[in-house]
Amino acid sequence: MFRMADWISILGIVAGCCTTGASVPQVLKIIKTRKTRDISLMMYCAVTLGVMLWITYGVLIKNFPVVLANMASFVLVTTILIFKIKYK
Amino acid sequence: MFRMADWISILGIVAGCCTTGASVPQVLKIIKTRKTRDISLMMYCAVTLGVMLWITYGVLIKNFPVVLANMASFVLVTTILIFKIKYK
Repeated sequence: MFRMADWISILGIVAGCCTTGASVPQVLKIIKTRKTRDISLMMYCAVTLGVMLWITYGVLIKNFPVVLANMASFVLVTTILIFKIKYK
Repeated sequence: MFRMADWISILGIVAGCCTTGASVPQVLKIIKTRKTRDISLMMYCAVTLGVMLWITYGVLIKNFPVVLANMASFVLVTTILIFKIKYK
């Protein structure tokens, strides 16, 4: 049986899957269209810095969903950032 | 004097400011150009759902930076989502 703390951890993982996984359709859209003109470069620079800080924060508070979600986010947002620089 | 726990909370707030504030230049870019063609609709649907779940998670674990960052994110990502629907 799951305890309340387990359900809360599952909620954190689902939340992380949504916000992290959200970048997947954006990556696929860029691969398909090769266009990034309407996407903000500054947004993805700030997001990249932000997820690096979230990973550090998650490690320090020993919070598994925060670390996991942001490590996956890091891969995706740096991919979008590289695309933005490549297909400007 | 700040204790270690205070510094960790400050790091969480700075991380939240980066990832949340990142949406501001995207909002401003859309206001300026009125163009959202290269932005993924599915991304902003998933992000909106995700931040709602993060807020719930943050409340349940009583984590102030997670709640605060995601409440501000919610305002910004729904703004981008509305723009995406309006200027498709």
